[in-house]
Amino acid sequence: MTTRRRGRPAAGSSPDTRAAILAAARSQFAARGFNGASMRSIAKEAGVDASLISHYFGDKAQLLVATMQLPINPLEKVQGVLAGELDGMGERLIATFLGAWDPHREVFSTMVRSTLGGPDPHATPVFQLAQNVVVAGVRDRIPGTDAHVRATMVASQIVGLAVMRYVLELEPIASAEPEDVARLYGAAVQTLLG
Amino acid sequence: MTTRRRGRPAAGSSPDTRAAILAAARSQFAARGFNGASMRSIAKEAGVDASLISHYFGDKAQLLVATMQLPINPLEKVQGVLAGELDGMGERLIATFLGAWDPHREVFSTMVRSTLGGPDPHATPVFQLAQNVVVAGVRDRIPGTDAHVRATMVASQIVGLAVMRYVLELEPIASAEPEDVARLYGAAVQTLLG
Repeated sequence: MTTRRRGRPAAGSSPDTRAAILAAARSQFAARGFNGASMRSIAKEAGVDASLISHYFGDKAQLLVATMQLPINPLEKVQGVLAGELDGMGERLIATFLGAWDPHREVFSTMVRSTLGGPDPHATPVFQLAQNVVVAGVRDRIPGTDAHVRATMVASQIVGLAVMRYVLELEPIASAEPEDVARLYGAAVQTLLG
Repeated sequence: MTTRRRGRPAAGSSPDTRAAILAAARSQFAARGFNGASMRSIAKEAGVDASLISHYFGDKAQLLVATMQLPINPLEKVQGVLAGELDGMGERLIATFLGAWDPHREVFSTMVRSTLGGPDPHATPVFQLAQNVVVAGVRDRIPGTDAHVRATMVASQIVGLAVMRYVLELEPIASAEPEDVARLYGAAVQTLLG
């Protein structure tokens, strides 16, 4: 849960208000994309003041994650790894990814399949999360003029791992020990980070 | 086209026969998987002699590729790269993949989306091609007791690249020059091959 209630609920902050904000956010993200949707446009559609959204959910990325009703908070996970040093970051990135999603592999599989099998993959929260949280976070953390393209390659590697391990369940990568996957696959990811 | 007619067609080798073999092969691969389906079981379902299948299509992997009606022959491409030396194979693998699929990105995107969005991804030709041509080919080519798991990781990286470049069309990786992608992504793949 990413609810950020502090102390007593503000006036009008019923579960209905929270649900209305999430519904408006889903609708705006799908129609306008992450960058096109604004806290203001979401507030307008939900019929609430924009400050109430910040109060409940924090910033726009946190609101996006909240719309996805995930069993873990990928934003915190990614930011935690990116805050560490660059050396060994590839292995820590993969270890953290597996630690978060191995217990919820059906959720991840459903998410990927509905995204890629659906009518407009670009409009989905998964795509927007990958682009605006994972890619943007990695890009801002690594050196070089080609940081952006290399960051998309890191995201590609993680997507490929997730498809094989969780969706297609290809052996032996599907059942391999997380630490072995983190070590081997992490070394490959590292070549794009350093 | 993977048709292997040599000289005059054999008796009974009409377009209808060829179509019947392909229909039976699709049905058997879907029902039994690549390993479970045999040339014999396919011949039986098609009502032809097994030797006629070899005559038309070659071996079982070639028959699988023929069922997919692809604009290129991935079997020949992969085998060409795997026949070369291990040094630089990562870059050549990615360069060859992009050279083959960049001109047909819509075909690849449709193939991936129908595989991952469909009811049984394991039963699809794409999965069986990845497992029995790409993974098996790489596994047999690289050293080490963990060759099999590393081969699945190479396949994961290629799947991830394809999803980002062709299906999700995430920039800047979607429009990046093939040689830049081959150099950077190929270096990452290489860590799993050597």
